Amino acid sequence: MIDFCLGEIAERLGGELIGDAGLRITRIGPLEGATPSTLSFLANERYRWQLATTGAGCVIVAPALREAATDRGATIVTPDPYLYFARLTQWWVGLTRLAPAQGIHPSAVVDASALIDSSASVGPLAVVEAGAMIGPQAVIGPHCVVGAGAQVGAATRLAAHVTLGAGCRIGARGIVHSGVVIGADGFGFAPHEGTWVKIEQLGNVRIGDDVEIGANTCIDRGALDDTVIEDGVKLDNLVQVAHNVRIGAHSALAGCVGISGSVTIGAHCTFAGGSGAAGHVRLADNVHISAFTVVSHSLPKAGVYSGMFPIDDNAAWEKNAATLRQLHSLRNRLRALEKKTP
Amino acid sequence: MIDFCLGEIAERLGGELIGDAGLRITRIGPLEGATPSTLSFLANERYRWQLATTGAGCVIVAPALREAATDRGATIVTPDPYLYFARLTQWWVGLTRLAPAQGIHPSAVVDASALIDSSASVGPLAVVEAGAMIGPQAVIGPHCVVGAGAQVGAATRLAAHVTLGAGCRIGARGIVHSGVVIGADGFGFAPHEGTWVKIEQLGNVRIGDDVEIGANTCIDRGALDDTVIEDGVKLDNLVQVAHNVRIGAHSALAGCVGISGSVTIGAHCTFAGGSGAAGHVRLADNVHISAFTVVSHSLPKAGVYSGMFPIDDNAAWEKNAATLRQLHSLRNRLRALEKKTP
Amino acid sequence: MIDFCLGEIAERLGGELIGDAGLRITRIGPLEGATPSTLSFLANERYRWQLATTGAGCVIVAPALREAATDRGATIVTPDPYLYFARLTQWWVGLTRLAPAQGIHPSAVVDASALIDSSASVGPLAVVEAGAMIGPQAVIGPHCVVGAGAQVGAATRLAAHVTLGAGCRIGARGIVHSGVVIGADGFGFAPHEGTWVKIEQLGNVRIGDDVEIGANTCIDRGALDDTVIEDGVKLDNLVQVAHNVRIGAHSALAGCVGISGSVTIGAHCTFAGGSGAAGHVRLADNVHISAFTVVSHSLPKAGVYSGMFPIDDNAAWEKNAATLRQLHSLRNRLRALEKKTP
Repeated sequence: MIDFCLGEIAERLGGELIGDAGLRITRIGPLEGATPSTLSFLANERYRWQLATTGAGCVIVAPALREAATDRGATIVTPDPYLYFARLTQWWVGLTRLAPAQGIHPSAVVDASALIDSSASVGPLAVVEAGAMIGPQAVIGPHCVVGAGAQVGAATRLAAHVTLGAGCRIGARGIVHSGVVIGADGFGFAPHEGTWVKIEQLGNVRIGDDVEIGANTCIDRGALDDTVIEDGVKLDNLVQVAHNVRIGAHSALAGCVGISGSVTIGAHCTFAGGSGAAGHVRLADNVHISAFTVVSHSLPKAGVYSGMFPIDDNAAWEKNAATLRQLHSLRNRLRALEKKTP
Repeated sequence: MIDFCLGEIAERLGGELIGDAGLRITRIGPLEGATPSTLSFLANERYRWQLATTGAGCVIVAPALREAATDRGATIVTPDPYLYFARLTQWWVGLTRLAPAQGIHPSAVVDASALIDSSASVGPLAVVEAGAMIGPQAVIGPHCVVGAGAQVGAATRLAAHVTLGAGCRIGARGIVHSGVVIGADGFGFAPHEGTWVKIEQLGNVRIGDDVEIGANTCIDRGALDDTVIEDGVKLDNLVQVAHNVRIGAHSALAGCVGISGSVTIGAHCTFAGGSGAAGHVRLADNVHISAFTVVSHSLPKAGVYSGMFPIDDNAAWEKNAATLRQLHSLRNRLRALEKKTP
Repeated sequence: MIDFCLGEIAERLGGELIGDAGLRITRIGPLEGATPSTLSFLANERYRWQLATTGAGCVIVAPALREAATDRGATIVTPDPYLYFARLTQWWVGLTRLAPAQGIHPSAVVDASALIDSSASVGPLAVVEAGAMIGPQAVIGPHCVVGAGAQVGAATRLAAHVTLGAGCRIGARGIVHSGVVIGADGFGFAPHEGTWVKIEQLGNVRIGDDVEIGANTCIDRGALDDTVIEDGVKLDNLVQVAHNVRIGAHSALAGCVGISGSVTIGAHCTFAGGSGAAGHVRLADNVHISAFTVVSHSLPKAGVYSGMFPIDDNAAWEKNAATLRQLHSLRNRLRALEKKTP
């Protein structure tokens, strides 16, 4: 059972604590279903009404909600409650999550030429091939494969079943979730007499610091140059990053996004779930792509872009979709009418 | 060689057998390509014409097709031939598939504190971490990782390469296919000065009984509360279920579906292939989403919903898609014309 | 350090070498960033301008660019520079990539009844089940699982973490990337009183020669008959191929494509990224599907087909998408106007 008093939390993470510093907190939880030993937060004004009904022992709020919150009980006031909550979860996990055992599990298969820092952890049944380098405090989960000459930076954690291909590199403080494949071959073939002749993929994957990669996501190695993921990038699950893509620093791609070959994405961009980009397009910094939208041409200007068919009940959709196939001719008929009408 | 007589089958599975109960059956197969020792079924009136041409030894049909079927040979009549066929495949597999060896394979790495029922099977090179619980008759395939404190219910089968994260639970009689990742971190970050601050994901994944999960599908752990998959849910391959999603009992999601964070799906819903749902939306029971359709807002009413761009030959599509970008102004021009026209 | 002279390359791969046959080449690279020891190629007239600025030691070009290229230095002239480049990468890799160790790694778990050619390689911690057959020169990567009775053809390579299900077969010279799951159960259920009754999947997966399969792609086993991938097919990453699909020879499917059950795709077809096909449709040979397009009905005629919502800035999209929901009624209003207008 984890158990802290509010005073300790505020001391560590800051914020103005209003109320009983001795209150025991055993859980971080949402406002709904909170108990007197739950620490909750309110980041969105939309859910302000929940303040009145929550049973939380203490609520983290922005200055604008100070009174509404203190009226009901203990409160931590901070300029950005969501950020405070993020740091709270990190502190919580740091105190409660067991650190993996340092050293190499006896069942792991590690090549004698691999360089593994003595503070790193290599889990059961992991494979580390010739010349691979594993940095200080790095964690290689069970069943990971770190290919020949691959590099894992300091404090980077690979969950179970991660494949880091030969010669590929990830920087410091990264998190790679299970099933991720880094450094499979890019999809490159020369057409020849009705068949496909393989273009061997000679580049690698280079990943910066503070990158998180979601479960079963794939990042292919480059054809000649490297595929590059810059610092601070966050990729969700089941994302496809093709060869020679470059993703700029601190961009974030949600689940099921597909980025085709040689796409260049600027810094601080976002792709919502299920969206994608066609080959070779370039995106400026601060471009935001809505869900299920395809970037079919370069976007040299920051902004929000969308292209998703709106959902409707099936009968209405059928009529509209059928009419959509005549849209160009409807336009021509409209033009003709306009000409006739004075 | 498997070999049953028709009489045995009808005795086990019911139905009215018309014809030679001694007929030997060595294969269950489709009407097309069937031989005299093949048992086939006809579930869809549309394929009724195949009755005339099939070489099947016996055909399972609904009462309405009794005469058409018996005219050609041995027949099993049953109210729901497709259901009969499903049960037939189960019976067939029960008799022919080898049961995995009970006990723990010597190459598996099992923590001493894990509780593994003596009738369970833990395959080669599997990893079972501290405090995990594996129920009676459960099967943990080769290379699976069952995380610390995770629970696998009675008779649930994990195929090869499944990752069940720490603290996550699956109920009884589940089937989890290869490459599935249950309990990776949800995609949660607080934006801060142009970077993303990780929100540690403190919830788990809770999966009910009789759930089947397709290959390489991902179900993320919740941020604070759990992600929940209720009884009888079926997920196909490469499905993404984000943190804090709740999928109601007996709903089915086809391949490549993506469900964003905190979505609530009712019971008996279906999502066709490639469809998805945006964050925080709620779906009533019995909502059916067509292929490649995005649920962008809550759907409080049962029904069929669609939003897929219709396919066309490329030249026609180009014209219509270009015109689509002017659709709003076309509407305004139409309005203007309407005002002018008496 | 790899180091060849131009003359050697031309001798092996053909083409007309114009310039110093003794020039040392240490790298194959793109025109941009090339050094005097880099061998580059120019396959697309669009990038012709790069000839003037590249520092490459030698450039591979088509006859039409002979003069422009020789003006700047050493040149290899060949009818199809892209094909030449593909073969060059293959030759390069053949000389530089280490062959995996022949034989079975001591940590692999191999059933005594498996037939493994003495020239094959079975990597660390791989599992090969009863009755499996591994052909000459085949490579089974670390952590692969080759199921009971499965077959891997000559010189086929499975990267790390591949699952080849019981009874499934892949032919010669295949390449299967990490995380691929071949032979998971197809998604088949009979509805019964609000629940789903599993249809056991009794078919296998049959894959021809010269097939490449990208990371984390899934190919399900057939319900009764087999799922079939013909010779020369190329599948990119995160592709879903459902049960009983047949993909014709030399077709190529890009990343994130989803093919529903019982679809038949002809030979020499292509699916661009994120596209898909609904169940049971049939495609002729030489059908090409654009990105994010769904094939909702059979396409009996070769050609290019598209159905992707065009991207736009969000404000414009919102207006057009909202209007799209009234499209059918707009058409009716247009008709009414047409009737009124003489």
